Amino acid sequence: VTADISSEDRIVRLLRKTSGQNPSSLKVGIGDDAAVLLPRGADELWVVTTDLLLEDIDFRGGWLSPAQLGHKSLAANLSDLAAMGARPRFHTVALGLPRGLGERWIASFYQGMKRLADALGTTLIGGDLSRSEHGLHISVCAIGESSRRKLLYRSGGNAGDLLFVTGTLGLAAAGLKLLELGRTHADNEPERLALSAQREPAPRCSTGTWLARSGLVSCMMDLSDGLSADLPRLCAESRTGAEIYSNWLPVFGDSVRWGCDPVALAFHGGEDFELLFAVPRSCLCAFNAAYPRRFPPVTQIGRLTRKRVLTCRARPRGEARLLPPLGFDHFRKTK
Amino acid sequence: VTADISSEDRIVRLLRKTSGQNPSSLKVGIGDDAAVLLPRGADELWVVTTDLLLEDIDFRGGWLSPAQLGHKSLAANLSDLAAMGARPRFHTVALGLPRGLGERWIASFYQGMKRLADALGTTLIGGDLSRSEHGLHISVCAIGESSRRKLLYRSGGNAGDLLFVTGTLGLAAAGLKLLELGRTHADNEPERLALSAQREPAPRCSTGTWLARSGLVSCMMDLSDGLSADLPRLCAESRTGAEIYSNWLPVFGDSVRWGCDPVALAFHGGEDFELLFAVPRSCLCAFNAAYPRRFPPVTQIGRLTRKRVLTCRARPRGEARLLPPLGFDHFRKTK
Repeated sequence: VTADISSEDRIVRLLRKTSGQNPSSLKVGIGDDAAVLLPRGADELWVVTTDLLLEDIDFRGGWLSPAQLGHKSLAANLSDLAAMGARPRFHTVALGLPRGLGERWIASFYQGMKRLADALGTTLIGGDLSRSEHGLHISVCAIGESSRRKLLYRSGGNAGDLLFVTGTLGLAAAGLKLLELGRTHADNEPERLALSAQREPAPRCSTGTWLARSGLVSCMMDLSDGLSADLPRLCAESRTGAEIYSNWLPVFGDSVRWGCDPVALAFHGGEDFELLFAVPRSCLCAFNAAYPRRFPPVTQIGRLTRKRVLTCRARPRGEARLLPPLGFDHFRKTK
Repeated sequence: VTADISSEDRIVRLLRKTSGQNPSSLKVGIGDDAAVLLPRGADELWVVTTDLLLEDIDFRGGWLSPAQLGHKSLAANLSDLAAMGARPRFHTVALGLPRGLGERWIASFYQGMKRLADALGTTLIGGDLSRSEHGLHISVCAIGESSRRKLLYRSGGNAGDLLFVTGTLGLAAAGLKLLELGRTHADNEPERLALSAQREPAPRCSTGTWLARSGLVSCMMDLSDGLSADLPRLCAESRTGAEIYSNWLPVFGDSVRWGCDPVALAFHGGEDFELLFAVPRSCLCAFNAAYPRRFPPVTQIGRLTRKRVLTCRARPRGEARLLPPLGFDHFRKTK
């Protein structure tokens, strides 16, 4: 794992090294999905995260409506809160707008954002608006809380714990493929699912909060860059390896219709915003009994291992292969 | 004031109107320099702000070193905290980087930011790194605290209060003029002062905290877009007008040497990051006696008025003229 660490991850490590001593009110700093703060005297932990969406990197003009962009830029941040089990409370938005996008565009953007915000209980508390000479930039900062101080970290996993994901993997990437093919309107249910996952992802906030409070989960993160890029981060923090059962992955089989490899998308497709978490073997029965049916289905996809490598194989008798980190890394090409 | 409201301010008003009921832990939402939160059970108020710096809008490549950009992007946010009297505690950074800016650039940027952060007591707790196809974007979110729950708002002013500013006005704009003239290295002390104000502004954090705790100040904000753009915001929130004494402004006279009008820069030049605040007449003596000498000098520049217009005149007998809002507004041109 260590040898395969990507360039983006190396930058984060550099920052962690130089960041010095944490002040007492900072429980977790750089390196997890979000930072964790304990205001003096407060009952609750606060969780802070920030995410950037840039034109022609994270989206193309025309592929998403302003309202969808508002939804998605908030969703990416709320997913980081969900990843730790924090309940969304507040958010800020900094918008850099190219000429040509006026007040009507801005109003739609904020409406789309507000619909998701209202549904998940977070309030817009501030922001910044600027003209941009170079494309559209959206930067959101989200603040969540854990009133019972029960959060999950990437670092809590142990060898032997069983790995689970929520929902379906590769759905958002299948939607991206549709957009790249110029198919911006869905003709059938699979296309609708894929486009909706790509444009209006649903962050797993209540599921994340439940998992954190359950006491049955050892570590958690969200899948934003793809399983093959994110799993090494979970393993690095938990100081484990992992074995993935390739034939157990909850893939989106319909994407073969538009030329995708569902298993490759499940491994390497980004933006699913599903949760990846580990359940200690001793908690498995209790977990299966307690996990609420109203939440998205969860699937076991493998286990954490003592040996610090990432492998994948088909169960029961497939041969183990090393898992290459092919998920999205902004900086790999500059390596 | 209401009629002159700028386009950027109209957007902010629209958002305030549609933002609905504030949750109980949100003390101040959209519209001040920063939002104010009260975590449940906490002793301290928390203050959150965000600011965007975009290439070719807020800076040009080559005019500022990576370390200076790191410094300035944090400084702009800390100034918003200073504007309310909050002590800086934590910050996040989202960076969109064009190809060509590699790990060395990133390391210098963070070093410059860290020097200021260490000096003012704030800790980097997270961020996002992304490749950008369109110029450099920097988005910072800063979190401050008020341990004694003493903050100042734009809205606290009353007619008759005396208006003050810290430091010198127009210094950063004079530095910008030098850069536009291609004079990126200072040949003398005035040029050094101006370039340093433009590139490495010093947010007035300890001054702001002192002013908020003093009990002698009624309202406060920071000057980021220029007096003529920011004063109407203070007046709108305090429901007053203002009269400015043009010949009392602490202008930067040396800028005439490079073709500037010091009074125009003091009114309309942005990025000074000085504090604008009001002292009730009854507190003036106490204020003058108590204001610490180690802090930047303060100058009375006018007063708040009952009549809700902004005027300026030379004291004692100059004729009053309406003050046009000519400071920086990202959106005026699209009106």
